[in-house]
Amino acid sequence: MPTREPKQERSRATRQRLLESAIDCLAAYGWHATTMGVVAEHAGVSRGAAQHHFPTREDLITAALEYMTESRLERIRAEVDALPQGPGRTEAALRRVVDCFTDPLFKAALQVWTAAAADERLRARIVPLEERFGRRAHHATVELLGVDDSDPLAHRLVQATLDMARGFGLADVLTDDSARRSGIIRQWAATLDAALAPGREQPEWTL
Amino acid sequence: MPTREPKQERSRATRQRLLESAIDCLAAYGWHATTMGVVAEHAGVSRGAAQHHFPTREDLITAALEYMTESRLERIRAEVDALPQGPGRTEAALRRVVDCFTDPLFKAALQVWTAAAADERLRARIVPLEERFGRRAHHATVELLGVDDSDPLAHRLVQATLDMARGFGLADVLTDDSARRSGIIRQWAATLDAALAPGREQPEWTL
Repeated sequence: MPTREPKQERSRATRQRLLESAIDCLAAYGWHATTMGVVAEHAGVSRGAAQHHFPTREDLITAALEYMTESRLERIRAEVDALPQGPGRTEAALRRVVDCFTDPLFKAALQVWTAAAADERLRARIVPLEERFGRRAHHATVELLGVDDSDPLAHRLVQATLDMARGFGLADVLTDDSARRSGIIRQWAATLDAALAPGREQPEWTL
Repeated sequence: MPTREPKQERSRATRQRLLESAIDCLAAYGWHATTMGVVAEHAGVSRGAAQHHFPTREDLITAALEYMTESRLERIRAEVDALPQGPGRTEAALRRVVDCFTDPLFKAALQVWTAAAADERLRARIVPLEERFGRRAHHATVELLGVDDSDPLAHRLVQATLDMARGFGLADVLTDDSARRSGIIRQWAATLDAALAPGREQPEWTL
């Protein structure tokens, strides 16, 4: 069956174009304007072909978030070995983490979260996805920072780092906030290093 | 003119009900569903009366964000004197700050920011408002924490605190995140106290 393989490959390529287009459209036009028709057109695919892959808009958008987040996490993990060793590591690791919260994928996800806040049915689909992503982002950040997550202090500071990164993401939605956050990231790296230095006195705080 | 005063008062009360209803509707139904008609109905006002106060939906929503944020900031400032002195102060202050990012006003503002991300005209109205709010939130946080904002380390850590609070706000949109963030706030208070302790060694970092 010599035509089988190319057909499957075309189908997979179409699917991937739809997933990427869904993220582009969400980030650029927002939730409400990102209809099946708009995404299909952006992907250069007929509406029927799009619906063959994804029966509903929610199916498409959920799959797009899932696919793009998995790729993003894989890319981040591949970068762990490329981080500088020694003094600059924490800052470099933090910049990688924050990059994930200021890219078009985050801006697309923000559109979905905000829509889900006012849509019970969408929320039921998004919440389990978010919980899984949250755990995976935590593990990736632990690896990037090279800290011991079984240390309660380190665990909390990784969580704080991710909350801060999420806040940077939100501050970057309406204007380019990169200059402001750059100094804060630098400071945060120094604070993390001081708080987690070997032989540190742990601040008064117990689980 | 004995009827003059009550009429003005009624008009002011109507205006205020519209502003509060706009925030309620945004937080509960989202940006797209928060039309002039929906807000007027929620406020128990005719559509014509609503439009007398606010010619367009954008006028109403911008005024609502402005009014509610100013009231919120005033309330926060009034609480400065009620904070405990000594060891518990930083944590208590942080909880006040985070409360502002997890209340319905934040959820309403999130709907507007997200809509503005995909709407050039709305963004032009929201960005200057956001810049002013950002500066005022920074000053209020400095007062609550009782730190010296002319110290570059303190300044950056206040900024980091607000970014983290914004991240907490976003994490609270789809599910109640209060238990998770409570431990992080406690840890962050201890880290801030250690970093800003008198006689501290400032982490290696210069402006």
